[in-house]
Amino acid sequence: MVEKLIKPNLSAHELTLATRVIAGEVNAAARAISLIENGSAKVKELISELYPYTGKASIIGITGVPGSGKSTLVDRLTTVIRSAGHSVGILAIDPTSPFSGGAILGDRIRMSSHWNDQGVFIRSMATRGHLGGVALATGDSTLVLDAMGKETIVIETVGVGQDEVEIVDTADIYVLTLLPDAGDSIQALKAGIMEIADIFIVNKSDLPGADSTVESVQAMLDLQEYLPEAWRPPVLKVEAMNNQGVDTLWETINKFITCCPELLVKRRRTRVENRLRHIFASELTAEFEDAFSGKKLALLVDAVAARKTDPYTAVAEVLKKNPEHQSFQS
Amino acid sequence: MVEKLIKPNLSAHELTLATRVIAGEVNAAARAISLIENGSAKVKELISELYPYTGKASIIGITGVPGSGKSTLVDRLTTVIRSAGHSVGILAIDPTSPFSGGAILGDRIRMSSHWNDQGVFIRSMATRGHLGGVALATGDSTLVLDAMGKETIVIETVGVGQDEVEIVDTADIYVLTLLPDAGDSIQALKAGIMEIADIFIVNKSDLPGADSTVESVQAMLDLQEYLPEAWRPPVLKVEAMNNQGVDTLWETINKFITCCPELLVKRRRTRVENRLRHIFASELTAEFEDAFSGKKLALLVDAVAARKTDPYTAVAEVLKKNPEHQSFQS
Repeated sequence: MVEKLIKPNLSAHELTLATRVIAGEVNAAARAISLIENGSAKVKELISELYPYTGKASIIGITGVPGSGKSTLVDRLTTVIRSAGHSVGILAIDPTSPFSGGAILGDRIRMSSHWNDQGVFIRSMATRGHLGGVALATGDSTLVLDAMGKETIVIETVGVGQDEVEIVDTADIYVLTLLPDAGDSIQALKAGIMEIADIFIVNKSDLPGADSTVESVQAMLDLQEYLPEAWRPPVLKVEAMNNQGVDTLWETINKFITCCPELLVKRRRTRVENRLRHIFASELTAEFEDAFSGKKLALLVDAVAARKTDPYTAVAEVLKKNPEHQSFQS
Repeated sequence: MVEKLIKPNLSAHELTLATRVIAGEVNAAARAISLIENGSAKVKELISELYPYTGKASIIGITGVPGSGKSTLVDRLTTVIRSAGHSVGILAIDPTSPFSGGAILGDRIRMSSHWNDQGVFIRSMATRGHLGGVALATGDSTLVLDAMGKETIVIETVGVGQDEVEIVDTADIYVLTLLPDAGDSIQALKAGIMEIADIFIVNKSDLPGADSTVESVQAMLDLQEYLPEAWRPPVLKVEAMNNQGVDTLWETINKFITCCPELLVKRRRTRVENRLRHIFASELTAEFEDAFSGKKLALLVDAVAARKTDPYTAVAEVLKKNPEHQSFQS
């Protein structure tokens, strides 16, 4: 196995990191995710090394409206998954503050009940960058957890926007948490994420309005034309804080994974396709940054800002004239 | 002016559309935004034609947590701006549902009080696509409103995620609406959008907790190292529904625009730079789609899904071998 990893252009240091991740070392996995988080140039080689050892984990994506108790839900769900004998990797995605450059809430306050469990690896990740960067970093970090041998991976994301739709590309099954409040479900629907959920959770369902929220989600599902034939998304009432309904959630997740192999295969193919697209864009954006650093970029911005040219024409000329792009030819 | 617009490769139809937008025709502007929304190939030429006529409008971005009353705020603010004698263009950005392909909430239920005012152009826009597509479409639509002569443009966005951070690139001034609830401000902070706001609104400030929300935002501003010297973001209590504080918001917006010309110039340059980056990425992604449609892509996905290669190596080989990319050379 180790021999398989050796490549002439790989330094001893990265070799060690990749093999250590595959051996399940927590420190190595943490360092690998840090490299991904920081957009290190070493990530490509690392993922290339890890990739043959991936594809075994089940990946659960959990998102929801702010305040819907996702962290508590993930904590309780982890307990249930551990009882079922699976090792668990948890990735909590926090969008980066553009100024502070880090996630506000970190591992410290998360999941305190699993600190001493060797079968649980928890990492919160600050994501940065645009243009699919969040999805790409999430996907790469998931591969790290997969390669280190975690059987079930839980990705928790904040919010219900386009980013989260992209993060869905990373998961096999997608759980949306709502609150007992009709308004929330409408907001989620606006964000276009509702149609992607495989399982709906009405969390904190001891609060008033839980039943009417369940009903309005069901009504919305009735209206959908594109539900997969094999699976109508169930709507589950859960009280994560009181450990109510979390077992049922885990059963439902397993039911989905066993019920719909074609759906899962199709989803994983789409995931690969999107990953290729993101990597392609990120590579070419890097070319742009290289070609247009400093003065060259400033001159172009001046010309567009002064309305001497327009942005589309400017970029078209860059693509035609810039000798840097000769590197794309065979 | 019309002669200036003539280009040999521009059909009579598009010529008419660009000139009609510049003449301020509502139907033409609506059609132009539809072309942008649908990702039409005609957009590039259209924007090239409109671009010399843009750069005059003040652009206000308004976002906030779900349920914070943004639509009502924009409605009331529009009344105030109209009283000040400005024409107003409003762009409400609704992320597209990936299945239904359209915004759930449309123009129908928005801004009913301004239907009969010729000085107000309202358009809600469904955005689709990844990789900066939302920001690019928003920017292009803003250029349409600018070219048609709207003096103040208001961009209303849903949610507080990375997309909204990108939409900020489109605005001169950025207003964040919160609710009287400390939890909300923390959620917004997590999304990294708090540090970008020029003005904070605590809307529905007749509800309990308004003062403590103002205080917690102020406390957070005290902690920030990167506030622009010329402007500490004010935190305003507003009751949009009851028309309280909306005048003050408009005064504060004007104060910002007049106080900080350097900041505004810098921001507009950054906006141009980001737009160039987005267009570059979108052009090259289109190249990818062209090169990898159908069977070619399917074969690549098969190889990666079967772990015969990894995604980074696959893309690197595409970039090296694909003859399509010879088109980038001079």
